[in-house]
Amino acid sequence: MKIIKAEARNIHFISRMVRDSEGHSHPGAPHDAQLPIFTITCDDGTVGYAIGGRMDVPVLNSVVAPALIGEDPFMRERIWQRMRTWQRLHPTFNDRTLNAMDLALWDICGKASGLPVYKMLGGYRDKVSAYGSIMVGDTIEGGLNTPRAYADFALKLVERGYKAIKLHTWMPPLIPEPSVKLDIEACHLVREAVGPDIGLILDPYHDYSRQEAYYLAKELEKLDFLWLEEPMDENSMLSYQWLQAKTSLAICGPETAGGKAQNRAAWIVNNAADLGRAGTETMGGITAVMKIAHLYESFGMSVELHGGIIGNLHVLGAISNTKYYERGMLHPLIDYETPQPWFNSIYDPMDEHGMVTIPQSPGIGWDLNMEYIQANLL
Amino acid sequence: MKIIKAEARNIHFISRMVRDSEGHSHPGAPHDAQLPIFTITCDDGTVGYAIGGRMDVPVLNSVVAPALIGEDPFMRERIWQRMRTWQRLHPTFNDRTLNAMDLALWDICGKASGLPVYKMLGGYRDKVSAYGSIMVGDTIEGGLNTPRAYADFALKLVERGYKAIKLHTWMPPLIPEPSVKLDIEACHLVREAVGPDIGLILDPYHDYSRQEAYYLAKELEKLDFLWLEEPMDENSMLSYQWLQAKTSLAICGPETAGGKAQNRAAWIVNNAADLGRAGTETMGGITAVMKIAHLYESFGMSVELHGGIIGNLHVLGAISNTKYYERGMLHPLIDYETPQPWFNSIYDPMDEHGMVTIPQSPGIGWDLNMEYIQANLL
Repeated sequence: MKIIKAEARNIHFISRMVRDSEGHSHPGAPHDAQLPIFTITCDDGTVGYAIGGRMDVPVLNSVVAPALIGEDPFMRERIWQRMRTWQRLHPTFNDRTLNAMDLALWDICGKASGLPVYKMLGGYRDKVSAYGSIMVGDTIEGGLNTPRAYADFALKLVERGYKAIKLHTWMPPLIPEPSVKLDIEACHLVREAVGPDIGLILDPYHDYSRQEAYYLAKELEKLDFLWLEEPMDENSMLSYQWLQAKTSLAICGPETAGGKAQNRAAWIVNNAADLGRAGTETMGGITAVMKIAHLYESFGMSVELHGGIIGNLHVLGAISNTKYYERGMLHPLIDYETPQPWFNSIYDPMDEHGMVTIPQSPGIGWDLNMEYIQANLL
Repeated sequence: MKIIKAEARNIHFISRMVRDSEGHSHPGAPHDAQLPIFTITCDDGTVGYAIGGRMDVPVLNSVVAPALIGEDPFMRERIWQRMRTWQRLHPTFNDRTLNAMDLALWDICGKASGLPVYKMLGGYRDKVSAYGSIMVGDTIEGGLNTPRAYADFALKLVERGYKAIKLHTWMPPLIPEPSVKLDIEACHLVREAVGPDIGLILDPYHDYSRQEAYYLAKELEKLDFLWLEEPMDENSMLSYQWLQAKTSLAICGPETAGGKAQNRAAWIVNNAADLGRAGTETMGGITAVMKIAHLYESFGMSVELHGGIIGNLHVLGAISNTKYYERGMLHPLIDYETPQPWFNSIYDPMDEHGMVTIPQSPGIGWDLNMEYIQANLL
């Protein structure tokens, strides 16, 4: 079985989400937008896809695609290792782009062997508990514009079935200055609204000082939060080592920091976090995150996965040392349960007990609306 | 797909190998012997096997088999994790027995999906360089009874195609006292015989003192050996930390020490070895060794796999951070190239360049002589 074609394209669609200047998404007026899709085709007709995830289309076409032609898609580790070394001198060949390649290869391998990816990896569970991941705070009426708005929305999420919730609080540029006091006010009202049995997580502004982060940690201890995520610049592992030593609250990370498994090894050895963090979309795909999960397991540590990403679902289905699927991002004004036009169905349907089923169809398992995709290719 | 039957049996065969009282194998007079085989059968007729490897037959039948009935064989990680926790209170449920279960499950999953196991894992290479692993020294005329005998045999191995060789030197009870001087004499004569371009490894008596181990390391540095393996009791990680700090020779381990990936993490953090060591047969199977390989990769370390075991071949085919397949054990009086009667062909045929092909048929890929096995079941 050989790869005969690989191509990245963009699809036109009407987006109802806008990114602020720091890069966070919020509801917005409908506007033209583009979604990347990477397609790998094999000589037996098997086709694998990766869609979305902010992959770099030019790198996929100029660097990755030529390297894939003629390769056996089942030689994933060889291909992944070679492309990893090529990232060094291609400035925009980031781990999101490596993820696109990895996902499309896994999709082919799963389809060709008739297996959902997590069962190729070795299944651990068929369902996983989700937490509702609330979008970054905004200034929208009826949105996430006050601490009370978080509490009201959190209650709706509990009614929907979620057993745990994550708050992303306010950040510039939508407010001039982030505020740990405001963050804690939201956390306090949410805890009050949902009661003591719902797991809560805070993922606040990502560039607080050590003192501000420490204040958050101390207050969240009192509110019995599950963990605190990325309150400081992750380039400073030493800041996290300092914070972890000072507080009994679990600190989860690193998320944004690059360096794949090797950097996470350094964080482990330096006790810079209590819970590990990884995600297929931003760290080089399922192949990369399985290495990271095995690393954490070797140190008796759990790893919590970043993002409501289909690749993460397969990893969650194949490892023991993790608890939640991050479902979202969620917002009072956004309907998360209706598929985007390029999907026939969503990949992470959740039952009334807050459980998401790992995709069961062969390959990655997203249910693509090929008619829409073909009609909107740019 | 569900497991409907699992059973461990023994096969009668005529062995030409004898174990000394410490447990090492040597050529010997033909005698009756038993070989264990573990068989898992699924409702669709797929059958997976594990054979040999000194698995514990009673534990497989009384503990493992009942737990497997009704399970989906593709839920390997869930099954492996559950059985791992059950090892705690079943005294003979060792990692060799866990390996037997793991191999038989991988065999089923590979067969059911039409893939050799290493391609399910994600292939990295189709062939791997072998080193010839010479048996422990003995007192047999024409065997391995003198340093010169090692040199003569090593030369034959180089002629056969091996690019690297490992010596297991003399140990009690076949000699009254192990001797580092005798070990080094053998290493010296072998280096002289094979020249500077053949990789050499020493795996001597496993209970030397720190001073004796240090002597070996210093002498092997001069002889340009690749690494030294397990010269001291591995229960003392601190002895290895001491040795590693004192010598520039690469130290490889731990091999015999239990604790799976978690113990290897401790050796890594304490700089107790330069090269990691793992093996499917003695550490809980392919599932366990993939975790260990990913751990070492996260620390920028290589891992060298223990034993000429088919499970190791699949791991070698699926990871980047390793160099050799350990082929053997080899001995001047033993024909390694002819299959045992329960095989139609050997699983590790080697070409004239010293390269072994990773098994390519679906599943684990051993070529069982079912007629012989059925006729000799006990």
